[in-house]
Formats: sequence, structure tokens, C-alpha cells
Amino acid sequence: MERYDIIIIGTGPAGVSAAITATIRNKKIMLIGSKDLSSKIAQGHTIENYPGLPSIAGADFGNALKKHLENLNISIHEDRVSAVYSMGDYFSVQVGQDMIEADSVILATGVVAGKPINGESELVGRGVSYCATCDAPLYRGKDVIVIGYSQKEEEEARFLSEVTNSVTYFQVYKGETHLPESIKIVQSRPSEIKHVGDKNIVVDAEGNTYEADGIFVLRDAISPGQLVPGLKTEGAHIVVDRNMATSINGCFACGDIVGLPYQYIKSAGEGNIAALSAVGYIDKKRLAK
Amino acid sequence: MERYDIIIIGTGPAGVSAAITATIRNKKIMLIGSKDLSSKIAQGHTIENYPGLPSIAGADFGNALKKHLENLNISIHEDRVSAVYSMGDYFSVQVGQDMIEADSVILATGVVAGKPINGESELVGRGVSYCATCDAPLYRGKDVIVIGYSQKEEEEARFLSEVTNSVTYFQVYKGETHLPESIKIVQSRPSEIKHVGDKNIVVDAEGNTYEADGIFVLRDAISPGQLVPGLKTEGAHIVVDRNMATSINGCFACGDIVGLPYQYIKSAGEGNIAALSAVGYIDKKRLAK
Repeated sequence: MERYDIIIIGTGPAGVSAAITATIRNKKIMLIGSKDLSSKIAQGHTIENYPGLPSIAGADFGNALKKHLENLNISIHEDRVSAVYSMGDYFSVQVGQDMIEADSVILATGVVAGKPINGESELVGRGVSYCATCDAPLYRGKDVIVIGYSQKEEEEARFLSEVTNSVTYFQVYKGETHLPESIKIVQSRPSEIKHVGDKNIVVDAEGNTYEADGIFVLRDAISPGQLVPGLKTEGAHIVVDRNMATSINGCFACGDIVGLPYQYIKSAGEGNIAALSAVGYIDKKRLAK
Repeated sequence: MERYDIIIIGTGPAGVSAAITATIRNKKIMLIGSKDLSSKIAQGHTIENYPGLPSIAGADFGNALKKHLENLNISIHEDRVSAVYSMGDYFSVQVGQDMIEADSVILATGVVAGKPINGESELVGRGVSYCATCDAPLYRGKDVIVIGYSQKEEEEARFLSEVTNSVTYFQVYKGETHLPESIKIVQSRPSEIKHVGDKNIVVDAEGNTYEADGIFVLRDAISPGQLVPGLKTEGAHIVVDRNMATSINGCFACGDIVGLPYQYIKSAGEGNIAALSAVGYIDKKRLAK
């Protein structure tokens, strides 16, 4: 059976970065994910803070990553990974119907947003955004709705209130909020997002409607490490050290799955570290034999 | 006095990335470093693993970063930072002749080229100085030695020659020098600095000795422990957690200075994290008031 040095799961900026660096370091890799890379990238608005690529459209950024992979002859294996088993000295990964072996695994699966709100997925990039830092400039002087699934999203709402004309904040969690008075707080649950005319509308559980130019859906809900039995997680994220090593020997992780901030450049940087850590792990293991 | 939200020290990929994200997050920043960004980048070979910029020449990468800063109207303040003091609630940073205040500081100074010269660390402030602008007045009419690690230090030597009685210049790099004839140039490598009687002595690799009243050691980065009193370090690196927080509240660090791997994309990713951590720190601090 064919054996890989490193299986990299995920084709967002973290996985792509890991694949690039591992390939340059002469490792035999399998990169598993979507040939379109990440739907979040493709549909995303302009990215302002990926150094060296000023104000790049999401689609253009995706194409730049694809071109980089092509230049290095890295292909993407498009299939579903359903389990990653540590066998002690190596990993056995269920890819589609096959079990594939590798010395090391890099998890770069991104955060899986829980159940989307009705209409949410359809409107991503057309009024619905997941990133205040990225997209706030689009709504300068306009009205936005923030749907916050945890307290830490209040910081994002505060930032948006500095930039926009008004912020309406859906508090989709319990407890107190600490928000400026200028922000209108709604405590009912959003049940639908829709687009009417040139406005976006959130309908809540009681049927009330709220209108805005843009809607920020800020959540953190994922099921991390479900893939890898025994992996240590913390809330939605995989626990890693500064070398991107997880609790399982030879298994590394990077990108949104290891925690905030959810930023492309942060993910790409971590992908690089994870790849070099995996390379070091493999080299050390082989040397010991 | 003008007060900044964040002072960012260093204009490699880490500092540039931090500046970009902090600016997008509406913070008032001062970015201190070289207008040429990093000599390492400009002189560097082709970069193969910065995702999205396949096979980019070092100089082109530098220009892409410069363009990104320009697009966001971020200017570079070109001056030497000689000390960063935590004042509890804010920072006081010695920039050239001025003390500048900020709520938060991000250290992105890169790694110090090589080890300090034997005896150097022991004599800082007692004959050894890192800042010509700051300490030249102490040596009016006296004899000084300048140990210059890059061509741009020649300007400091010229300035010192206008103030002091004599300047002896150790050229610790290749290429031509452009210095007035009054400056004596030494091309051997300094191996030790010591204090004998009321004189300071530099011993070179061949065992020759050079005597002066003051010794200026001018290199791109000074060691982090010397820059920021009380900062926890480990070898040549600053100790940080996964949020890029150092041992000093409100002080963050990113890039080569926090450890291996020394990779542009890793540094850029960490700069982003450091900026967002600083933003969070400032917002939280202001909310508590």
C-alpha cells in the first residue's frame, strides 16, 4: 500500500500553506479537500490584511493559492475524511472508502459552523459576513446587524459600531452584555435571513423583522477533533502548543480549528509551522530507527 | 504629549502585518523601523513558500509589503528605539531623543545577528552604548569606537565624528564604506570588549587592541532583554503564549524574535495575532475604566 509522509486535511490557507512548505521540504504529501479550496474564501469579500496582497478579492486570493499549488505540482485529492486513527508509529486515515497510511497528519479543517440560520448560506458574500475585521470597511456609515453567539463577539460589535452608522446586536447566549448604549440589543433568536430589494432582513423567532445593509454572523460552534479519537480539545478548538503539535504524537493542527483569531494570514503562518514540525517529527523518527 | 494606541517596533513581515491589522482595526499606531523594511528581505533569495505569492524575489516581496502599507497610509517612523519601559498602565518608549507613550507595544525586531561580543552585555551603560543619537553628547571632545554591523551605521559614525574628538570604525560587513577621512576604518572583527582603568578597549580577532572613551555597538536589533527591562526571554528569544503575549502586561511580540521557524509567512501570521491581541487588551482596559 502506498504510504505518505504527511496527510494534510483541509484546503483553506492553513492546509495550502502546510502543503507548500512540506513539498518544498521534499516530503510526499496527500492534500485532501475541495479543489475550490475553501467556500469561505471564494465567497468572501475583499481581504485587506494579508500582507503583500493589498485589497485582494476573495476569489482572486483563492486563485493565487491555486496557482501556487499548481506551480509546485501539488494536486488536491477531493474526498471525505471520516476518521483519523493513531496507530502508535503511524496514522491510518479513512479517505472515502479507502484507508490511507501516513507517518504524520496535519489537521487544517477549519471551523465547522454549526447549523446555519435559514437563508444564511445562500447570502454569504451577498450581505452575510463572518468577519468583522475583514468586512467592516464595506459598511462605513451604513446599518449592520450582528448575530453574536458568544460574549466575545461583543468586541467585534463594538468595533463595528465605530465604523458603521448603527449596529443591532442579536445576543444568542445567556448573561449580561457589555456594549455601548448606541448598540441596540435584541434578545430573541434569529430564525431566518433574507434579501428584499437592496436590504437584508433578519426575522426572529417571534416573526419580528430587522433590516440592515449587512449582517454579521459571528459564531464559534464546531465539533473539533470528532475526526480523531483521543484528541485533546478545548471547546470548539484543538489544543496545540506553539509548534502546532496536538496531544497525539505526530499529529499537528493549524488554522481556525486551533483557535482565534480567524484570519487568513494567521492560518497560513500556522500551516507553515505545522509543516516544519511534521518534517522535524518524521526526520527524527527515521533517524532513531 | 501625543499618545499612541500601539507602538510597533520592527518593519519585517511581522511588524508590517501587525501594523496593517491594527490600522484596519482603527488603532492609532506608530510603526518604527527602516523605510527599506528589512535588509534581509531586500537581499534575500526567491521566496517559495509565502502562500499566494509563488516564487517571489525578495525585493519584489519587499515592494509588495511597502505598497500594502502605502495603500493604508501607514508611514514608517525611521529612528532607533533604545528602551521600552512598562509604566504599569502604559508604556514609555525611547525613540531617538524622544520619549513616546503608548497603551501597548508590539516587539517585532527580528533576531539579533549573532551573539553579543564578549563583555558587551556587562558594559552596557558603562562605556558601551547602542544609540549614537542618545549618547553622543556624553563623548563630546572624546575618543569613541563604533562597531557597525551594516552600511547604514556609517551615518551614525559620521554624526559622531562631528561631535567627538576621534572615531574608529569597525566595519563588520562587506562592501565599500563612505566615511570621512577623519574616521579610521578597521576591517577585522571585534572579539572582546573590556574595561581597563578609565578606558574601554576593543580586542579584535587578531588580538590587536583599540582604546577609547566610549564604544558604540550599532546593529539592527538589540537583544530583547536589553530593550525591555524585565522581559522574560529564553536564549535569544522572547517567551510568548499562543496569543503572542509576553511576560509584561500589554506587551506583545511576534516574528523571528519569538522563536523558530524563521519564515516570512510564520512571522506575518504572528503579526496579525499580536495586533488583534493588542486591540483586545486596549479595548478591555478602556472598558474597565
